Amino acid sequence: MSGNTFGHIFRVTTAGESHGPANIAIVDGVPPGLSLSEDDLQPDLDRRRPGQSKIVTQRSEADTAEILSGVFEGRTTGTPIAILIRNDDVRSKDYSEIREKYRPGHADFTFDRKFGFRDHRGGGRSSARETVVRVAAGAIAKKLLQERFGTRIVGWVAQVGDEVASVPDPTSVTLDAVEATPVRCPDPDAAARMIVLIEQVRAARDSIGGIAQVCATGVSAGLGEPVFDKLKADLAKAMLSLPAVLGFEYGAGFGVATARGSENNDAFVPDGDQIRTRTNRHGGMLGGISSGMPITFRCAVKPTSSLPQPQDTVTRSGEPTTIVTSGRHDPCLLPRFIPMAEAMTALVLADHALRQAAR
Amino acid sequence: MSGNTFGHIFRVTTAGESHGPANIAIVDGVPPGLSLSEDDLQPDLDRRRPGQSKIVTQRSEADTAEILSGVFEGRTTGTPIAILIRNDDVRSKDYSEIREKYRPGHADFTFDRKFGFRDHRGGGRSSARETVVRVAAGAIAKKLLQERFGTRIVGWVAQVGDEVASVPDPTSVTLDAVEATPVRCPDPDAAARMIVLIEQVRAARDSIGGIAQVCATGVSAGLGEPVFDKLKADLAKAMLSLPAVLGFEYGAGFGVATARGSENNDAFVPDGDQIRTRTNRHGGMLGGISSGMPITFRCAVKPTSSLPQPQDTVTRSGEPTTIVTSGRHDPCLLPRFIPMAEAMTALVLADHALRQAAR
Amino acid sequence: MSGNTFGHIFRVTTAGESHGPANIAIVDGVPPGLSLSEDDLQPDLDRRRPGQSKIVTQRSEADTAEILSGVFEGRTTGTPIAILIRNDDVRSKDYSEIREKYRPGHADFTFDRKFGFRDHRGGGRSSARETVVRVAAGAIAKKLLQERFGTRIVGWVAQVGDEVASVPDPTSVTLDAVEATPVRCPDPDAAARMIVLIEQVRAARDSIGGIAQVCATGVSAGLGEPVFDKLKADLAKAMLSLPAVLGFEYGAGFGVATARGSENNDAFVPDGDQIRTRTNRHGGMLGGISSGMPITFRCAVKPTSSLPQPQDTVTRSGEPTTIVTSGRHDPCLLPRFIPMAEAMTALVLADHALRQAAR
Amino acid sequence: MSGNTFGHIFRVTTAGESHGPANIAIVDGVPPGLSLSEDDLQPDLDRRRPGQSKIVTQRSEADTAEILSGVFEGRTTGTPIAILIRNDDVRSKDYSEIREKYRPGHADFTFDRKFGFRDHRGGGRSSARETVVRVAAGAIAKKLLQERFGTRIVGWVAQVGDEVASVPDPTSVTLDAVEATPVRCPDPDAAARMIVLIEQVRAARDSIGGIAQVCATGVSAGLGEPVFDKLKADLAKAMLSLPAVLGFEYGAGFGVATARGSENNDAFVPDGDQIRTRTNRHGGMLGGISSGMPITFRCAVKPTSSLPQPQDTVTRSGEPTTIVTSGRHDPCLLPRFIPMAEAMTALVLADHALRQAAR
Repeated sequence: MSGNTFGHIFRVTTAGESHGPANIAIVDGVPPGLSLSEDDLQPDLDRRRPGQSKIVTQRSEADTAEILSGVFEGRTTGTPIAILIRNDDVRSKDYSEIREKYRPGHADFTFDRKFGFRDHRGGGRSSARETVVRVAAGAIAKKLLQERFGTRIVGWVAQVGDEVASVPDPTSVTLDAVEATPVRCPDPDAAARMIVLIEQVRAARDSIGGIAQVCATGVSAGLGEPVFDKLKADLAKAMLSLPAVLGFEYGAGFGVATARGSENNDAFVPDGDQIRTRTNRHGGMLGGISSGMPITFRCAVKPTSSLPQPQDTVTRSGEPTTIVTSGRHDPCLLPRFIPMAEAMTALVLADHALRQAAR
Repeated sequence: MSGNTFGHIFRVTTAGESHGPANIAIVDGVPPGLSLSEDDLQPDLDRRRPGQSKIVTQRSEADTAEILSGVFEGRTTGTPIAILIRNDDVRSKDYSEIREKYRPGHADFTFDRKFGFRDHRGGGRSSARETVVRVAAGAIAKKLLQERFGTRIVGWVAQVGDEVASVPDPTSVTLDAVEATPVRCPDPDAAARMIVLIEQVRAARDSIGGIAQVCATGVSAGLGEPVFDKLKADLAKAMLSLPAVLGFEYGAGFGVATARGSENNDAFVPDGDQIRTRTNRHGGMLGGISSGMPITFRCAVKPTSSLPQPQDTVTRSGEPTTIVTSGRHDPCLLPRFIPMAEAMTALVLADHALRQAAR
Repeated sequence: MSGNTFGHIFRVTTAGESHGPANIAIVDGVPPGLSLSEDDLQPDLDRRRPGQSKIVTQRSEADTAEILSGVFEGRTTGTPIAILIRNDDVRSKDYSEIREKYRPGHADFTFDRKFGFRDHRGGGRSSARETVVRVAAGAIAKKLLQERFGTRIVGWVAQVGDEVASVPDPTSVTLDAVEATPVRCPDPDAAARMIVLIEQVRAARDSIGGIAQVCATGVSAGLGEPVFDKLKADLAKAMLSLPAVLGFEYGAGFGVATARGSENNDAFVPDGDQIRTRTNRHGGMLGGISSGMPITFRCAVKPTSSLPQPQDTVTRSGEPTTIVTSGRHDPCLLPRFIPMAEAMTALVLADHALRQAAR
Repeated sequence: MSGNTFGHIFRVTTAGESHGPANIAIVDGVPPGLSLSEDDLQPDLDRRRPGQSKIVTQRSEADTAEILSGVFEGRTTGTPIAILIRNDDVRSKDYSEIREKYRPGHADFTFDRKFGFRDHRGGGRSSARETVVRVAAGAIAKKLLQERFGTRIVGWVAQVGDEVASVPDPTSVTLDAVEATPVRCPDPDAAARMIVLIEQVRAARDSIGGIAQVCATGVSAGLGEPVFDKLKADLAKAMLSLPAVLGFEYGAGFGVATARGSENNDAFVPDGDQIRTRTNRHGGMLGGISSGMPITFRCAVKPTSSLPQPQDTVTRSGEPTTIVTSGRHDPCLLPRFIPMAEAMTALVLADHALRQAAR
């Protein structure tokens, strides 16, 4: 009802505000016997963490996860896994102005309209801070997918402003290639141009949007439900549930608008004793159910709304004013968006893999 | 679990196959006291119905809904409303070939991988036939939204192939303007070109994709939940749950990729004793919660997969073959997609309106 | 939210009023490949049907189910199964008085307080008529349990008024023994006394309560979830969701109040290469999870509230009056309660069996 | 699916084992603006806490709750409230024997059958330790019910072994009267006898069962849903979800078995401009919906399964053995059961109050 739970069998419930004591996730439905410790969560938490490089915000949180339940002698027990991540570096003084002024592009105004009352510090529950526990939960899902189902998920930055990466074969992108540059773009030339652009934008006290791409390989055919819970529908929801995402497309995406059926359809062909399609304009999903081909999709991410330049807005009582958001913010959200997108992809795929296994 | 239910408070559960006896929806959570009869469902069912014009399929179904429960003396009672729509014009003989061959672009292959067994006739449960009861349920949601919340939803065809409609003000599009042409495009010039294109495509035994747009006005601020059940997330899921949709974007959509924050943010301005934004690049949703501005989004719809020309594929046992889909199929799905998109939009908004009212 | 859906994987959603056009169930989550037709539903529908014998109400409904979806060529497809049961013998004239007067023991008053408006005819949705589709859904669950899991469920009348059945071994009760008498008590002597008592009560224009017992055998160990969804909790909910039930107890039940731990605990003992308990005071559930021992429980069922004698009550506007319920009502609900109790038991066990199989 | 979540609008998700680092609850759906701090949780945590008196176990846990989210400046924000309770006094050494032997009456055996693997220390997730966060969540529900709905919940020990309390008017029982004795029985004479009995049982290295009663007053008419989510069904589930409960009855309970309808029905009578019933054999619920009369029900609680005397059992590999449970255990569970029963009652009533308010 309040939308703090995601998934059916692999099921995550979260709580926490940007500047409260902690963020918490309860991850339910993890099968028993999976080896698991905090060490499995840290790499993705580190990738998401602020302050990793000069192109991202310098807020320095340790983002150390503590597993409070559901693991015994190094293995999951099948009972819910609670993850606690304390909020260390909470400078509430930075945020006193936004108590009274609505930041453009943020949820301050809509939270007030919804709840009549909000924890304004750093955006409270509307802050991207809440994704920290999604990333931790996603790390568990990734491990389950890899060990039990052979599924591997990689995301990367495909575009920043007009700088577009060239990635001829999405299935060949490796985590190492993505992590090779702070902008998380596996095309080194494009990455270099993106970094220059981001620095220019930062110098101009502005921000810039982009596009993220995700590819999941080793997804067996048959995942997704026929009607409302199509796999594409749940992936779309997962991505749009992330802050700053304004668009989702999979496979040929918006390109289908100008395509003819004869060129858009992917022919089925034999592949040894298996069946696959010759091309993958369907992005690995047909009728909303995985086909066994790689799942590929893209997300449009808006430029950071918080800007260190004056923007027109109003106060809570409706008086015109301006606001300069002086806090520590990324000029481009894309690099830190990648682990979030991967995590949400993992939550969807783990849930659907278990739902299908239940058949 | 099986994904045949949609929504939390306003909640729809459906059943039915393309060529089974009937399609059924149970619509739960409709507040008591709403005046309702079958006459309220018929207009949208007629808009969705095959055979309305020469540019859509000629399958002639009456698509007459019977309300079996939840209405007493012309008013809803607050108990669940069951809707029954019999499948009249079921010509199973048309579909015998697809028992053994996988149609490219369809769910035949993935259903077999999922269930090991399927009702192949007309695509069974994967057929767009199942949307008939979504449209009926959506008509109830629309009525509730209009009468209790003052919300109005209109969808139209924004693009077919390269033919793009010019709609300077989405909020001014009326149902009458949409229904003025069989292609459901409110720009008469573009509509004429689209119709020509669709006829050309049909003559070429091919099909063509396009883009649908939806605008909802009169949506009060505060709808949507902060984290997973963001309004944008649920709209994205709703749209991607429809057959043939490969992309979703709201507000500035994929255009944000090349935008700077300073140009993308919508400034808040006073509006009498209310607050609104000067522009609406945020498509009526901030932090995933409605802002009171019009909600606008677009969906990419692929060209019809069924084609009356030979396509390469394989049999169930993996032997290469070709298939010609000789059934009655629209060369362009967009016109009949509009009532489906409106219906799913209505289901999402009705559910979130009631969820927020519950606060 | 509105409580018209039951179960998680094996999931039933119902709709329908006593005197509306029909009652409907959508049964979701039935695995593909189960052989199924309307013939599988009829026996239990007949057991529940009014008018079977002189000790039950004479309302004559055919109660013929039509399966509208989810079955193809005699087997389930894995898609939702819709069941339609028309209400044939609807004599609305019998119920005009209760539009204005609240029947003692019925839900007329509470429905008005809840919805502000109700379909008063025959109790509308509060009537036990709605259980007809629960029984149909339960028949599918029973078949699944028997064929896939080897589970068998039998219920019987254990007590009517002061007449108590002697059933030394609950696991030996057969359906034939239960069906041998119209009162559904497998102890023939007690059955005879119960019938005499029911006839006496009817002659006195009164009604009488009783106790039903259910035993499920062949339930493998491990069903039920550790915390909120304990198997005992879901069985209790299932039973209390049936009309007229005021109590539930399993195993030693309320008898534990006066027991010492040393006599109440069931010792574990080896049984070949298996483990079982020496006694079964725990009714087949420990920690809320099935132990592999037979599951046994009992329900207290109140005397029929509708009485053909004057009862004090008030009108909708609060004026004191009396009411004589002249309709066709059973003087004792127990015989027709048995198939309802079995059906709800089957829904719970099928759901938990599939939930556990999902592990 | 895994049953670690309870409720629909007011919704609690829990995690934690007896001897893990902590127990955690995420309480979702609490309306914004309720004043709340840890001080509101402590009284009931103290009532549930071990070691309060010599008749309960001496395990000394501080059971101090920390609120990690959802509260800002002393008021709830409408976002989820995470509660953390560390497990302080964890003596794992006490529990090494039960790794290999199945304790009679406990869930050791069924957990192994379910998960194939378990955290054996102190029962792990099957321990009543998990109720500590239910009690904390229940304290929030109680506060909401009292402040927003005027509802008050009191539970007490009605029976221990053969010692039965005399409570002529359940609605007059006060928290003070309940807390006046360590056995939580408001009848002082019976309380004295119960204490003597419990001491005798303890001296005999045995345990004893009993009956708890709960009364909720100030519950407005209209709570509960007509079919599966009847209020009585959800209360039954809530109570049976608690450890050691084998029976539930409300109102006249099992006494209806021998009652005639003419004596069992509660006549409606005017009460000023309201309507109530003359008697309350229906325990405040008709058709599963609250009538506005006090809600009363009783639970049968078994004697503690852990006994400091030898009991027959088997090892994990099925070898016969005996076990003496030497840990710290209450000889009678009833006194500490009361706050648990009240908490679960509060969760059900808060959820249904909000569900009805959503109408």
